[in-house]
Amino acid sequence: MMRKMNVAIVGATGAVGTQMIKMLEDSSLPLGVVKLLASKRSAGKQLSFKGEPQTIEELVADSFEGIDLALFSAGGGISAKFAPEAVKRGAVVVDNTSHFRMDPEVPLVVPEVNPEALREHHGIIANPNCSTIQMMVALEPIRQVFGLKRVIVSTYQAVSGAGNQAVEELKQQTREYLAEKPVSEWTADILPSGGDKKHYPLAFNALPQIDVFAEAGYTNEEWKMINETKKIMADDGINVSATCVRIPVITGHSESIYIETEKTATVEEIKALIAKAPGAVLEDDPSQQIYPQALNSVGKKETFVGRIRKDPDEEKGVHLWVVSDNLLKGAAWNSLQIAETMYEMGLFE
Amino acid sequence: MMRKMNVAIVGATGAVGTQMIKMLEDSSLPLGVVKLLASKRSAGKQLSFKGEPQTIEELVADSFEGIDLALFSAGGGISAKFAPEAVKRGAVVVDNTSHFRMDPEVPLVVPEVNPEALREHHGIIANPNCSTIQMMVALEPIRQVFGLKRVIVSTYQAVSGAGNQAVEELKQQTREYLAEKPVSEWTADILPSGGDKKHYPLAFNALPQIDVFAEAGYTNEEWKMINETKKIMADDGINVSATCVRIPVITGHSESIYIETEKTATVEEIKALIAKAPGAVLEDDPSQQIYPQALNSVGKKETFVGRIRKDPDEEKGVHLWVVSDNLLKGAAWNSLQIAETMYEMGLFE
Repeated sequence: MMRKMNVAIVGATGAVGTQMIKMLEDSSLPLGVVKLLASKRSAGKQLSFKGEPQTIEELVADSFEGIDLALFSAGGGISAKFAPEAVKRGAVVVDNTSHFRMDPEVPLVVPEVNPEALREHHGIIANPNCSTIQMMVALEPIRQVFGLKRVIVSTYQAVSGAGNQAVEELKQQTREYLAEKPVSEWTADILPSGGDKKHYPLAFNALPQIDVFAEAGYTNEEWKMINETKKIMADDGINVSATCVRIPVITGHSESIYIETEKTATVEEIKALIAKAPGAVLEDDPSQQIYPQALNSVGKKETFVGRIRKDPDEEKGVHLWVVSDNLLKGAAWNSLQIAETMYEMGLFE
Repeated sequence: MMRKMNVAIVGATGAVGTQMIKMLEDSSLPLGVVKLLASKRSAGKQLSFKGEPQTIEELVADSFEGIDLALFSAGGGISAKFAPEAVKRGAVVVDNTSHFRMDPEVPLVVPEVNPEALREHHGIIANPNCSTIQMMVALEPIRQVFGLKRVIVSTYQAVSGAGNQAVEELKQQTREYLAEKPVSEWTADILPSGGDKKHYPLAFNALPQIDVFAEAGYTNEEWKMINETKKIMADDGINVSATCVRIPVITGHSESIYIETEKTATVEEIKALIAKAPGAVLEDDPSQQIYPQALNSVGKKETFVGRIRKDPDEEKGVHLWVVSDNLLKGAAWNSLQIAETMYEMGLFE
């Protein structure tokens, strides 16, 4: 039996870090030391782990001495600088930022889809983008049986994916709306993207920008969905396009997904595949108004799939509505699930 | 010159009716008598028209004696019963409900797209569904030059499309959220569809159901977008599919639209077409974070189009983001614009 595992959480005070702590509390991993790391600003503050107070330490390179597993979620810059330091000291890094995702040396893993890619790691494993992960859980079982030629996705993404400050900003705007302040006076300093020049209100609005704009009129978030899908499914031949939109939801990403399969599938065949797919839950009964909802997904690890129906004209076209907790399967849970899967595969030995 | 026109608004107290009054106040039509009609419950109450108090009358068949133009927005049942009564008494009816839309004897009109269809009327003209209208304004200029083979749309629809009570319900849920009431205790008696069995909260949620479910797993709202598009564009060969979703926005429908054209178009060619299209406004500059937003559309008659970009793989595939005030171009303004267009075409003489 392996000795106990020492685990570090980098970015422990963030929206995802907080959920990583919860997921680690529930984990089947044999835990030794658990270190909560954050910036100097948060160092010294206390959080609780399994009911015991735990002091947050300032992140430095030597924080990773003796650490077996480091879960990073503190921004791409922090991962770029400190993930190699953690690896140098013998830790396996599961990185929730986009920094290493498209690095050909770094596996990009959704455990339900491509766990075997974990065997190729060189110390760092990348956790895919939140909106990509839940789409993979829903589409992989279909791809395995019917093939996948094309994906067109429009997202309805929650604000917690932009961090705790963005959540507070949405709440503040909501209060300002109810107090009948004119929109021009609402607080708007963060969204749609903290790193961009202009900021717009999200309350009672829909913002078709997540992350910054990149080539060909697509945002980085859209390119992430396009490129990560091909890498995770290990098939550059799948045509993917995405429109990523932030809506006034706190937690729970929803996605309207259109796919074209290689072979014709019936709705019943697809429902049967989803019903037995790992990590997926079929919620699909129009006669009873049963379909996935963001509010219902909060706090759950699964990806919920419904509104499955054929395109009216395209024989191999199918539409789906896919919802998951963006902080859990989209981030903290998938990261920890990667670690648990590696443990079960003997990759920590 | 024609004598002055006597106008009746049926459903004057509703979310759309209120906007019809505003549109009529600004209209170029030569107005005579203006009658505000509603149910017995509202009769006797006062509204204002051009600064003058105006008493609401109870809707009865004889309300239409001497009326030239009747604008209906009081539900399909009211239109079914009273529109023929209005026509019998010599009025032209512009009906905002879905009741007559697919009747082959009834023109279904977006004035920017198919004004000539107005000449075929037999007393009733149908105003299309809100989500259909703005899509038509954006796509018709493209169709005229490059042809249109296929449309896949995912909507982000505002709650005012479901009426004033639904707006109040969303506000109430929002207050309950801010007061930290558990979701299970939020008020939810109307949405997603007043006429359906189950009701769900919309605040901080996305509901993939608008109107009730119909054949093949699609909702009525989705079938409206599919069928109305073909009728308005007078082309059954266009393949259309829709996923209609309600989000917590008060006013302003947004749409993520994917199209495939017959001939290949560049982004610049499409932008140039939208920039000069009637009723459309191009808002598309990613470098300046310029794109249509629901909050910015409120109170405006135009349809805003942006995020125009080619599909990464499909040469004839283009993505767009289209936003409009669902109560104005989606309902009250398009209805009045139909009447003004008929007046200009001499169809009231």
